[in-house]
Amino acid sequence: MTKKPAPVMTADEVNDLFRQVFPQLNKDRPDYVVTEVFSGGCTIRLNAAYEHLRPGDTVSGVSLFALADLGGYACVLSHAGPDALSVTTNISINFMRKAEAGPVDGHCRILKLGRSLMVYDIEMVAGPDAEIVAHATGTYSIPPKRS
Amino acid sequence: MTKKPAPVMTADEVNDLFRQVFPQLNKDRPDYVVTEVFSGGCTIRLNAAYEHLRPGDTVSGVSLFALADLGGYACVLSHAGPDALSVTTNISINFMRKAEAGPVDGHCRILKLGRSLMVYDIEMVAGPDAEIVAHATGTYSIPPKRS
Amino acid sequence: MTKKPAPVMTADEVNDLFRQVFPQLNKDRPDYVVTEVFSGGCTIRLNAAYEHLRPGDTVSGVSLFALADLGGYACVLSHAGPDALSVTTNISINFMRKAEAGPVDGHCRILKLGRSLMVYDIEMVAGPDAEIVAHATGTYSIPPKRS
Amino acid sequence: MTKKPAPVMTADEVNDLFRQVFPQLNKDRPDYVVTEVFSGGCTIRLNAAYEHLRPGDTVSGVSLFALADLGGYACVLSHAGPDALSVTTNISINFMRKAEAGPVDGHCRILKLGRSLMVYDIEMVAGPDAEIVAHATGTYSIPPKRS
Repeated sequence: MTKKPAPVMTADEVNDLFRQVFPQLNKDRPDYVVTEVFSGGCTIRLNAAYEHLRPGDTVSGVSLFALADLGGYACVLSHAGPDALSVTTNISINFMRKAEAGPVDGHCRILKLGRSLMVYDIEMVAGPDAEIVAHATGTYSIPPKRS
Repeated sequence: MTKKPAPVMTADEVNDLFRQVFPQLNKDRPDYVVTEVFSGGCTIRLNAAYEHLRPGDTVSGVSLFALADLGGYACVLSHAGPDALSVTTNISINFMRKAEAGPVDGHCRILKLGRSLMVYDIEMVAGPDAEIVAHATGTYSIPPKRS
Repeated sequence: MTKKPAPVMTADEVNDLFRQVFPQLNKDRPDYVVTEVFSGGCTIRLNAAYEHLRPGDTVSGVSLFALADLGGYACVLSHAGPDALSVTTNISINFMRKAEAGPVDGHCRILKLGRSLMVYDIEMVAGPDAEIVAHATGTYSIPPKRS
Repeated sequence: MTKKPAPVMTADEVNDLFRQVFPQLNKDRPDYVVTEVFSGGCTIRLNAAYEHLRPGDTVSGVSLFALADLGGYACVLSHAGPDALSVTTNISINFMRKAEAGPVDGHCRILKLGRSLMVYDIEMVAGPDAEIVAHATGTYSIPPKRS
């Protein structure tokens, strides 16, 4: 098995960093919260409320994409270090099942942590049976270390 | 050339439908507006303000994804008819350049309009030189016609 | 956990079906072989030889894409039944590490088996440390049952 | 409009380079041929014969993926210079319509040419009506210049 990279930040530290550098994210309430950081990945939760729903009263694709994108951001921050200027280069997302309002858990896994790129995937599960509602794969570009 | 499907709704009608069935979308202000519907596609604009920015003060990936997703939604509504329950099955998005606050125009093109699936792409341009800031390809699932 | 769909064909039966309906696949040699079919997925192996290499003498992206595509085909055939006319609607593939000539194992997992679409992912591992060399997510369209 | 990067190689030079560094590609016959290189893109043709077909006698997804991948390779070689070690990092491909044996033309467009990454898309058309049979978006990683 591929050796898993070790994290350099905790879940709380990532949530704090989100608050400082990304005030637009959780304006009124903690909508998106990193719940765990572990070697080679992290878990992030969307507390889906009315604002996250789309026609049909299911969690919108945009809200699930945000979970996927932030899950990758939490992975890159926690494993490559707290440089907020890492940016997404691409994400491919599949929507499998409808999710109702309530928690959606995103299980993120780093597939490759290179010097300039991180590739990861995220499985998003929700509901009483923890069914997979969406799955995404993405790449973050890591800026060169400043010295 | 592939014959282009003809629209059955105007841009104004799509914006009205968004207001009725998707009140979460443009809460305080018209952030996302369909500006044109034509045979085989549409144009949709994001008026990117402070809330749409991410660390580094550039338009967030989530806001561009929302533009891509809504552009596809506008295509399917305007070309397959106003059934709000069409849903995204997948989207793949690439981020190419940073965009500052201001308008971002999404040029959408229907690549295939089948009975149950619509495939489209969207080129997102912004700035004084109308540079491509992001590009996405996606699929919408069209519900069976109700009679 | 999402209940896993049960297979209706064995690995040998899928390999036999490949031979019958897809003679172009393994012309001279068994390049692509389904090694296991289980509830909710399958494993498929590429025996990468000289023809599968690209400049730099690593397994080509096309050969890995073929593994990903055939892995999904084996999943849909073994779980939705032996209708050879199921077709891929889209695949998104990420290449993470270089693989040398030799076996590459694709671990496929069905993320959703609907009536008309199957979504799956595949993790491709190779080398002495079984490192992830590529990962893909895809969708197959399942033709309506003939009666 | 984004200024288009100028090519540094012709179509013939790219085909020659393919022959030299990638002998596995066109073994018996010119299956994949670059037909034009222009500022910001290129055109590449697949001459689809029996070997490129899948069950149902339509051009296989793998053959269209190969066209998409090689189209990107031709773009990066012709615009960033003849370093054969550029590699694909990811491709997302959508299959829209079935193509029969015969020529399939891939129209490639560079969406971004950075120092270390090139993003492009390709529209694949075939048949008497030049219908879009597939569309892909991809990224190539460009190795650092050797001096």
